[in-house]
Amino acid sequence: MTESLMNRVIDCLVNRSVQIHLHRCGDSSSDLNPERLMELFRTLAFPGLTIANPGDPKALAELLTGAMAQFRDQLVGLACWTLRQSPDASHLNDSAILSFAQSKIGEVLNCLPELIVSLHQDVQAACDGDPACSGPQEVVICYPGFKAAMLYRLSHELYRNNLKLMARMLSEWAHGVTGIDIHPGASIGHHFFIDHGTGVVIGETAHVGNHVKIYQGVTLGALSFTKDSSGRVIREEKRHPTIEDHVVIYAGATVLGGTTVIGHHSVIGGSVWVTTTVAPYSTVVTEKPRLKIRNQNEPTAPSVVDYQI
Amino acid sequence: MTESLMNRVIDCLVNRSVQIHLHRCGDSSSDLNPERLMELFRTLAFPGLTIANPGDPKALAELLTGAMAQFRDQLVGLACWTLRQSPDASHLNDSAILSFAQSKIGEVLNCLPELIVSLHQDVQAACDGDPACSGPQEVVICYPGFKAAMLYRLSHELYRNNLKLMARMLSEWAHGVTGIDIHPGASIGHHFFIDHGTGVVIGETAHVGNHVKIYQGVTLGALSFTKDSSGRVIREEKRHPTIEDHVVIYAGATVLGGTTVIGHHSVIGGSVWVTTTVAPYSTVVTEKPRLKIRNQNEPTAPSVVDYQI
Amino acid sequence: MTESLMNRVIDCLVNRSVQIHLHRCGDSSSDLNPERLMELFRTLAFPGLTIANPGDPKALAELLTGAMAQFRDQLVGLACWTLRQSPDASHLNDSAILSFAQSKIGEVLNCLPELIVSLHQDVQAACDGDPACSGPQEVVICYPGFKAAMLYRLSHELYRNNLKLMARMLSEWAHGVTGIDIHPGASIGHHFFIDHGTGVVIGETAHVGNHVKIYQGVTLGALSFTKDSSGRVIREEKRHPTIEDHVVIYAGATVLGGTTVIGHHSVIGGSVWVTTTVAPYSTVVTEKPRLKIRNQNEPTAPSVVDYQI
Repeated sequence: MTESLMNRVIDCLVNRSVQIHLHRCGDSSSDLNPERLMELFRTLAFPGLTIANPGDPKALAELLTGAMAQFRDQLVGLACWTLRQSPDASHLNDSAILSFAQSKIGEVLNCLPELIVSLHQDVQAACDGDPACSGPQEVVICYPGFKAAMLYRLSHELYRNNLKLMARMLSEWAHGVTGIDIHPGASIGHHFFIDHGTGVVIGETAHVGNHVKIYQGVTLGALSFTKDSSGRVIREEKRHPTIEDHVVIYAGATVLGGTTVIGHHSVIGGSVWVTTTVAPYSTVVTEKPRLKIRNQNEPTAPSVVDYQI
Repeated sequence: MTESLMNRVIDCLVNRSVQIHLHRCGDSSSDLNPERLMELFRTLAFPGLTIANPGDPKALAELLTGAMAQFRDQLVGLACWTLRQSPDASHLNDSAILSFAQSKIGEVLNCLPELIVSLHQDVQAACDGDPACSGPQEVVICYPGFKAAMLYRLSHELYRNNLKLMARMLSEWAHGVTGIDIHPGASIGHHFFIDHGTGVVIGETAHVGNHVKIYQGVTLGALSFTKDSSGRVIREEKRHPTIEDHVVIYAGATVLGGTTVIGHHSVIGGSVWVTTTVAPYSTVVTEKPRLKIRNQNEPTAPSVVDYQI
Repeated sequence: MTESLMNRVIDCLVNRSVQIHLHRCGDSSSDLNPERLMELFRTLAFPGLTIANPGDPKALAELLTGAMAQFRDQLVGLACWTLRQSPDASHLNDSAILSFAQSKIGEVLNCLPELIVSLHQDVQAACDGDPACSGPQEVVICYPGFKAAMLYRLSHELYRNNLKLMARMLSEWAHGVTGIDIHPGASIGHHFFIDHGTGVVIGETAHVGNHVKIYQGVTLGALSFTKDSSGRVIREEKRHPTIEDHVVIYAGATVLGGTTVIGHHSVIGGSVWVTTTVAPYSTVVTEKPRLKIRNQNEPTAPSVVDYQI
């Protein structure tokens, strides 16, 4: 770098001509590997992917001992790194951060059996919900919707244990890999299935019940933000909808608003836009738009035909 | 891991409190590298990316000998790994799986010249179809739509040779990298081009003709699933539409249903929703929605103006 | 590879049965690493991510010296590789390409202070625009919209310095990672924020002002392509819209056409389709579609209710 460029950059960073300064220092994130973390989680939940006799407790214990230690190390490392960036932890020194991270990750790992059961239920939901599915191994190995659910369930547990920046880092990593953006603050029931998934957005305060199926491009979002008297958005409010049990939401549908409830056993059709509560057992579809079909090779026919499909 | 947590996890996995067990064991997938596989495929089809004189048969033979051996090894490795997870292959031991994989991959490689021709035609289609395209090198190096087509053509060949789980693994890898979800069971003609591509979904039984151009967010999907008398979805049925030659489908359009046919030389407009057959040479657009435009800085004007654009 | 397959492949590649030949040779791209490039850029702009005392000029200079040298090396390497593929540079030998690349990258780096200021403003815009945002560290570490903006700002500078293929390679890498497709030719003002982002497309000739906020699935695209007398698309024309300052465009909206201008301080509602100019301070929403809601558990009620929400 030339001397003068270096000076200009330093000037720009030190003399606060720029406004954002990160609160805490830390080492580089380059050794931390969300992909490896996810693979270890998958190994723990589906040991049959890795060993010959997953039903043999001795072989299983051996696999789990190694995988679990690595999983814990990855989680603690990522927790420390993100805590060093968090304003909440700015009063802690490195050893206090490590203790805090270890204690929090211990609590998260304590939920591992319940997380594993959830993952198996999500796989079952995919097998049941997609006619193109050849079996559970395809779901576990291939499905982005399952990958997103898997990382949501882990990041939600981190979020509940107040490792929020770490939770968001994992959820955005999942978003990058799958195109599915689930905020770790959302609460989602068991047997959850997202098919295809690209473009799905599920907001921070959404509540999703059990046995819910969602297709690509669905948004469970905010309608508008309530502001306090000084014009700041009130963050504590529930801004995203509630989806009750056994609801199916087809591709491209948008459900908005913190007080909007989609009643159980309802079906929301493709591209529907819903901003009010819908009763249980409802089917909501958009009135089919009038299409105009012009047939280029029949010049004597009317050039434009309104055609209701 | 604490003793008690370990026991709870083993209990959960062995005592079948969870329902999904993968059928076969295998080693970890971590050595298998779809990215490397794709790069080798690209090298084989476009040797000018890698060597100085791609027109010189001797230099070419040297490059191809090395790249092809690596390509075959990657394919065989991935085939073995996925076969070990497949219920269909549960009766085969490791050496039988290897033989089977080698034989199947041999058949796939036998189509390599035809695959290469297809890739070159797809590049040509992108050059012709996108005014922002600077030339074939940009398509080969940059375009996600071409990457998706490249991996579709390979995974379709794997699928036809009954390596279905492997085919799906590659297609979902492509989905993750490009946002474009093409089921390897779909049949797609030559000179295929997807522009931008994020959110495209092409289902398992879709038929797409030659010289078809598709934009981001297009779904070629299923309308509903026919169920047999016991309530199970009938999988063999054609559930996804047929798109004939020289059709253009603009961004966000949805075409649904196994009996829906979009006739050749038709244009499907952006965001159109089609569930019935359209004649050849048709142009289908949605009747423009009424927009409401409220002008905030003209308080004396009517506060809401219906405005048809 | 069997002899005969090798011969068929060589025959296919050499004897021009395929039509696309890349113009220049080059070594493999496998050492070039956009991820590392982006991490170095982030380190330069936000040194507090990496060192303890980013406000200390001496510590900062040490970090910057190392990071900047690596950043420059990565940029020069990628520039050389892409230049070797460019028809524009086909008359240059390797040492001329290196000189050209070094000179161009020098010009790009000269803008680094301005780029850093832009990134800090983009972070501020995200903090201000998203009620779910916990602070700048979350934006820098997690937000795909910020990642896309960061890579856009770098690739736009490369594009302006005529490293167009390199610019496109980086922008498509960003597209793959974030689902956000911003052409490096687009011009975008300061304080830019894309929330969620999957499916966003911003075309080559779009102009976007300052303080603009865009949600997932928004397209700023071309309406149609003007062709010259020989039927070739005229590429120089402005094909994509102009978005003035302080505009918000909600999820799934589509704004098309090179002469379309969205006036400053306007709001474009979700899923709106706009192809004509809109005055400043306008709010544009789609007339809400009629929804049909059928309630399955009330068979005695009318089976279909038209319901305007």
